[in-house]
Amino acid sequence: MTEFIPPGTQFHALPSPFAMKRGGALHGARVAYETWGTLSPSADNAVLILTGLSPDAHAASNAGNPEEGWWDAMVGPDKPIDTNRWFVVCVNSLGSCKGSTGPASIDPATGARYDLDFPELSIEDGANAAHSVVTALGIQRLACVIGNSMGGMVALAYLLLHPGSAASHINISGAPRALPFSIAIRSLQREAIRLDPNWNHGNYDETTYPEAGMRMARKLGVITYRSALEWDGRFGRVRLDSDRRDDEDPFGLEFEVESYLEAHARRFVRRFDPNCYLYLSRSMDWFDLAEYGDGSVETGLGRIRVERALAIGVATDILFPLQQQEQVAQGLRAGGAAAEFLPLPSPQGHDAFLVDIARFGPAVRDFLSGLSVQSAASTRRA
Amino acid sequence: MTEFIPPGTQFHALPSPFAMKRGGALHGARVAYETWGTLSPSADNAVLILTGLSPDAHAASNAGNPEEGWWDAMVGPDKPIDTNRWFVVCVNSLGSCKGSTGPASIDPATGARYDLDFPELSIEDGANAAHSVVTALGIQRLACVIGNSMGGMVALAYLLLHPGSAASHINISGAPRALPFSIAIRSLQREAIRLDPNWNHGNYDETTYPEAGMRMARKLGVITYRSALEWDGRFGRVRLDSDRRDDEDPFGLEFEVESYLEAHARRFVRRFDPNCYLYLSRSMDWFDLAEYGDGSVETGLGRIRVERALAIGVATDILFPLQQQEQVAQGLRAGGAAAEFLPLPSPQGHDAFLVDIARFGPAVRDFLSGLSVQSAASTRRA
Repeated sequence: MTEFIPPGTQFHALPSPFAMKRGGALHGARVAYETWGTLSPSADNAVLILTGLSPDAHAASNAGNPEEGWWDAMVGPDKPIDTNRWFVVCVNSLGSCKGSTGPASIDPATGARYDLDFPELSIEDGANAAHSVVTALGIQRLACVIGNSMGGMVALAYLLLHPGSAASHINISGAPRALPFSIAIRSLQREAIRLDPNWNHGNYDETTYPEAGMRMARKLGVITYRSALEWDGRFGRVRLDSDRRDDEDPFGLEFEVESYLEAHARRFVRRFDPNCYLYLSRSMDWFDLAEYGDGSVETGLGRIRVERALAIGVATDILFPLQQQEQVAQGLRAGGAAAEFLPLPSPQGHDAFLVDIARFGPAVRDFLSGLSVQSAASTRRA
Repeated sequence: MTEFIPPGTQFHALPSPFAMKRGGALHGARVAYETWGTLSPSADNAVLILTGLSPDAHAASNAGNPEEGWWDAMVGPDKPIDTNRWFVVCVNSLGSCKGSTGPASIDPATGARYDLDFPELSIEDGANAAHSVVTALGIQRLACVIGNSMGGMVALAYLLLHPGSAASHINISGAPRALPFSIAIRSLQREAIRLDPNWNHGNYDETTYPEAGMRMARKLGVITYRSALEWDGRFGRVRLDSDRRDDEDPFGLEFEVESYLEAHARRFVRRFDPNCYLYLSRSMDWFDLAEYGDGSVETGLGRIRVERALAIGVATDILFPLQQQEQVAQGLRAGGAAAEFLPLPSPQGHDAFLVDIARFGPAVRDFLSGLSVQSAASTRRA
């Protein structure tokens, strides 16, 4: 349990104390990250990737870790985020359990896990932590900040809190605020974990671990990450073979779709820390750019300064609905950006950016290709 | 606990034994029902209402029970289902805990609750039980069978298994089969109940009651019964006043939408029997008209014989998506019915038929008004 850190991960020590938005501070905290490609002498070819709730910093294979990453089809030489041209940085979210400091980390003040003594975590804290990594790498201005899902929220906070820190932005299935349907889903996921007696107000260990609660939370997550349309074609009403069914359990797994959820959940429950899950999940509910726009999310977006932007989404996304990406594009345009809204017809729902590379790849590639970064051109292969 | 029977409920004794589709039989079983209006001498003005998973037979106030019913705005004198003209029957589903025999009933063979010894329940069993009520009331041919949600499934089974039993049909937010997204949702609801240690393989009582599991199941239900669109307008990001929050609980209720779910769940958990919930939920997953159509749901629908039909749905329904109501209309048309598909722009999702009476009322009224029932005309008020 505790932390799940891929080999080859690099670490950045955050300033200590590191003040948190909602109060309190972290001491001796760190952020895990990985990089790909080479930073140009003028440091103007850097692309930052901000992730969804659960991924680590290992977006793609690299020198430090040849294992496939979670966005391997997108990041690499000649891939849509072309590491021949771009110096790519991916950070693990502050509050996560995959190398960055979070509730599963040791509190230096006590020598024990933070658990619920971790200060309240907000999206803005993640943005500030990522910004600290980027500046430590010698990058004053990113060529582009790319944020997926929760990372799309973090990216908007990053741009707003650090004016001039990026020339462009790709927001993928992100949102400028949490809306009540998504809040309801995440609230129920957190309740599933908290209701598990083994959660024990955040004081669990390997033996008494809230596995049932985590399984429920993950299954509900997977249901909202994909789409009914995709599943109609993929699973239909296909049933499990009898040798994969438990005849003793009258309500046991019967349909393929149930088995799919079960397999997803089993892979996840012991690979993500429950308290970290709770903290990151809640940080999304709290996020609202209207805080920076006198109560208007449009005004908040309009205060972000980037030159170019692209907001991509899919109509089958029920968790971060398409209108939110449209709102991002409109808001950034109001702030002066050349911002494009690109709805894609992917059937896979919220997770489409992970799997529908045929559509997301060219969109991201085209946007990045159009960026006029002088030195980047000089590092591009002939 | 056990059963929740509104005053004034009437009971019909099913033939004993009553054979169940998937095996086994019920002995001494009954179906709860209520009626409104007067059956014409030729018994040709009868309308049957088949309900969703949880409602009782008390669709509207009547002589036996002046309390408001769950569809009070739709059923009554001069209302869309006009009881001046129509003799209306509403049955409580077989397997429910609201008067009809189900897992919460006493098994005459043992003198104890059936619980998981209740035979496997299918949608078709509910249809056969309803048909037994209708024929016992002296009705050979219904003027119309109306089915909402799960009741839309029961209605299709009713029509298919009892040819000639109805002249017309209104299918409201129903489906001719369960699809994997809905199966996944229901499977997770059942898992929440089954994971509650108090469920205890179906052997709970008032004291050790799976309240937490039922609460989770109900919340997930409510999330899928309404729509993101409705909630954006209704709740937005409004937070609870501080006096309605528990400052001691770091993950307690914070947003209005969370409080709304909690209130819904609290009203439900002790008013619906957990084992009945499991049985009815599973019966929906099993339902597939393709069983009667050589593997094709269209062929199954095409084997239903009604003269006129109306399938109504809303685009914001994620549980019984609009395409399924379109499929019902198309399939019934292929079987020779004058069948219309009516998508309504209600923002309330699956539950719209319960609340958007402004749209559903006229649609149902117009359809019923157009039915050419001879004696019904004679009983209509001048």
